[in-house]
Amino acid sequence: MSTKQKVTIIGSGNWGSSIARVCAQNTIRHSDTFEREVHMWVFEEKVDGKNLTEIINEKHENVKYLPGINLGENVIAVPDAKEASKGANVLVFVLPHQFVYKVCESLKGVISDDCVAISLIKGLDYKDNNLLIFSEEIERILGIPCAALSGANIASEVAEEQFGETTIASESAKHGELFLKLFHTEYFDCNVIADSRGLQVCGALKNVVALGAGICEGLNYGNNTKAAVIRRGLIEMRKFGKAFFGGVRTETFFESCGVADLITTCSGGRNKKVSAAFIKSGKSIEEIEQEMLNGQKLQGTTTSQEVYSFLSARNMTHEFPLMTAIYRVIYENASPECIARDLRTHKAIVEKE
Amino acid sequence: MSTKQKVTIIGSGNWGSSIARVCAQNTIRHSDTFEREVHMWVFEEKVDGKNLTEIINEKHENVKYLPGINLGENVIAVPDAKEASKGANVLVFVLPHQFVYKVCESLKGVISDDCVAISLIKGLDYKDNNLLIFSEEIERILGIPCAALSGANIASEVAEEQFGETTIASESAKHGELFLKLFHTEYFDCNVIADSRGLQVCGALKNVVALGAGICEGLNYGNNTKAAVIRRGLIEMRKFGKAFFGGVRTETFFESCGVADLITTCSGGRNKKVSAAFIKSGKSIEEIEQEMLNGQKLQGTTTSQEVYSFLSARNMTHEFPLMTAIYRVIYENASPECIARDLRTHKAIVEKE
Repeated sequence: MSTKQKVTIIGSGNWGSSIARVCAQNTIRHSDTFEREVHMWVFEEKVDGKNLTEIINEKHENVKYLPGINLGENVIAVPDAKEASKGANVLVFVLPHQFVYKVCESLKGVISDDCVAISLIKGLDYKDNNLLIFSEEIERILGIPCAALSGANIASEVAEEQFGETTIASESAKHGELFLKLFHTEYFDCNVIADSRGLQVCGALKNVVALGAGICEGLNYGNNTKAAVIRRGLIEMRKFGKAFFGGVRTETFFESCGVADLITTCSGGRNKKVSAAFIKSGKSIEEIEQEMLNGQKLQGTTTSQEVYSFLSARNMTHEFPLMTAIYRVIYENASPECIARDLRTHKAIVEKE
Repeated sequence: MSTKQKVTIIGSGNWGSSIARVCAQNTIRHSDTFEREVHMWVFEEKVDGKNLTEIINEKHENVKYLPGINLGENVIAVPDAKEASKGANVLVFVLPHQFVYKVCESLKGVISDDCVAISLIKGLDYKDNNLLIFSEEIERILGIPCAALSGANIASEVAEEQFGETTIASESAKHGELFLKLFHTEYFDCNVIADSRGLQVCGALKNVVALGAGICEGLNYGNNTKAAVIRRGLIEMRKFGKAFFGGVRTETFFESCGVADLITTCSGGRNKKVSAAFIKSGKSIEEIEQEMLNGQKLQGTTTSQEVYSFLSARNMTHEFPLMTAIYRVIYENASPECIARDLRTHKAIVEKE
């Protein structure tokens, strides 16, 4: 790479702002590789009558989505995605998935020819009864390679520089090294793997498993049951990945994006909380989403519906008893106790000597 | 097997009593395979002036170690281990590890020639700077095959018939089927694997990792850090197993004895609680054990010392940074912050394309 890499963050929510801060530290640290300024596309809105981009550029703080944290003076908020990405060599996608396609279309012809991207978008895209991987959608639309990043990362803790790990998946070792420079810090410990599909399957399905953990909690089930649900969740995540996406590897589930993120999501996190409240209150999931999330849809409930439709169309729901039970409890009025009952194996598998 | 199998439980604590109850249900269910009566060796003690064995045989309840639970009228408490095991075809070892050798010696010549055993003993045995697997020690002393059972199993929840899973490790598929009949129920879902060493390594090392989770809690660290510690713990458990014990398999860590038990032990459990109190109070671990456990030694602290000595003797402490940091924080006055600091990779591993 002859010229310095220009980095643009596409997104500026809680996680987008935290990750912009990490990148801005590293563009200074690795000044031989990166341009100092990190552009961050901010969907413009008014805060106390003032433009959010102006506040960020004056105070170096995203007062709306990551208050109290200095992002670094080299994070530059830009209200136009096209403008923000002009000449970019590295695009970091960290925005709600419903905006991905529109934004990608707007970036065509704007970015550098050698541009590479990385997706921090959660979830899979459900289209024509298929589940698509966002990094591959970005690759397809923009014609550039796209890696992915996911891990046990609560945004505010990363912003406070509490130690944590994450996983970067890059098919190309060269790009993997570039992303390592851009994201790795002493407190944000990155490991690079090659299995981008496995990483993104984990990021989507862990939210469904967390609904299962919440159902257990709502039923006041003990630790043994909850541990069984989380473990079966991990097994079904892996099985789902391997069955429907080529190249998914077992090792990926030992990474931060796998077992670590699953543990965090199942112990705290709003998917777990909402489904526990759903069981305890007897209200519909939509009512709970209205009450607890101001009408926003949970990632896990949407993914649960998509996974169930996907499996149904393939006559494979019985191969994924936990995912199926979670869907049926939440959307088909099934008895919540099936969360444990449907996991019973009746006959266990005896391995060959 | 031409004759019915006579089952003896060696041990009658909280877990021993719960498991005796499970076995007693299954000897009735599979009356073609097992003799109805399950003998349980009970270390005799007085409860309100009466022998514990007599209370158990009259009330069918272990009032001291599993109060409020009916064990089944076919559980017969016997105060003498030799007497309890006379003619036994199946021995279930579920007793504190310090008693194993003495009890095994006393059983020589008493049990049936075709007797098989299964070990539910937690931990590894540290001897001459080596770590020994209890099932293999039982095999060696008694000259009979010995399987092992471990999982995310809180004894009282199993006794209350809350759904949970466990793992049985048996080198022999035939014995595996026998143990499946003896332990599997609708609420206690057993999976049989062949990796007995991996299962027992998990059962021992998870307690050390739980000390690490407790140190995080004591320092008020967030979820990202705690998830990183648990994940690295899983990685080091597997690395330890593979490095020092032949035949340990990655799949074992996806079983209930692996990731599920680790999650449960790191979220509740006394190893975690004691180490959190250790950090918060500034007292020595011995003082905390005195205060919280009435002077009893924690499994995790003992194992931590043993693992550290074992690694030191082999100049391999640097290969297990988490296990080493935990030991140093607890026994060498190291700054507790090293629990996270020592996990920093500085350079991440980039996989080949």
